Amino acid sequence: MTVFAKRTSVEQIELGDSLAPRFDADGLMPCIVVEAGSGDVLMLGYMNAEAIGLTLSTGQAHFWSRSRQALWRKGEHSGFEQRVVRLRVDDDQDALLLEVRLEGPGSCHVGFRTCFYREVLASEAADQPPRLARLELEPAFDAAATYAGLDNPTKV
Amino acid sequence: MTVFAKRTSVEQIELGDSLAPRFDADGLMPCIVVEAGSGDVLMLGYMNAEAIGLTLSTGQAHFWSRSRQALWRKGEHSGFEQRVVRLRVDDDQDALLLEVRLEGPGSCHVGFRTCFYREVLASEAADQPPRLARLELEPAFDAAATYAGLDNPTKV
Repeated sequence: MTVFAKRTSVEQIELGDSLAPRFDADGLMPCIVVEAGSGDVLMLGYMNAEAIGLTLSTGQAHFWSRSRQALWRKGEHSGFEQRVVRLRVDDDQDALLLEVRLEGPGSCHVGFRTCFYREVLASEAADQPPRLARLELEPAFDAAATYAGLDNPTKV
Repeated sequence: MTVFAKRTSVEQIELGDSLAPRFDADGLMPCIVVEAGSGDVLMLGYMNAEAIGLTLSTGQAHFWSRSRQALWRKGEHSGFEQRVVRLRVDDDQDALLLEVRLEGPGSCHVGFRTCFYREVLASEAADQPPRLARLELEPAFDAAATYAGLDNPTKV
């Protein structure tokens, strides 16, 4: 099990040199994943203490799946792994930023390269929702074949 | 008030062209903020429905401050505003990605350019917490002067 530092003061948290993470009520922290080199934001995942420890010790991105309530190694189904280049933590240590090398065509369960394949545009009228426009016009891989037999994690 | 689409199906959420966000139990969504052009991740904030609407209508980044429990226009104290270049939403519409032009030297309340100014290194021993190494060696601005009189949002 990974050991973390206790949070003892604002100065220690913001300027100290030990990881003293603040998890939410479910024991999770958001983790932004970017592709090293391009800097493209691939996805936002969530890590618990075990996922942080495994990510650091194995060099492969691990997350906690909120939809499946299970530890999850990115790429365990698709083969599209995320190899750790650098893990970063923010000022108050309640968010992570993981720079990865992507071993595959994409990171999104819908089949796009990134999860952020749509832009939000202003509403066309006050009683209309904001419109979405596609930024990635074509899927990067065949999600139906890649994730065959698995439940879709998107919740309605 | 901004109107949002109802979430009716996985296909509509993932492939539709209307914003149908999923907020958490507190009515919030995480929002990754990156600098347009450089792609540097500046911070992770949280938006409620009002913050999304104001960000779209004013072209300036707005968030919900969890520590102050108040709506917050980025730069209202520091003057270091974030001008909207593009807002993006992820596959299941529970996370946002905001590309901004940063009007000032930084986005971090500690005084660094980004909130992710530290790298997480592996532990030196099994009973030691992971170490942190500074990536931004010098502050980008004088946080004590910039935020004089305000409470520090970091919670111990």
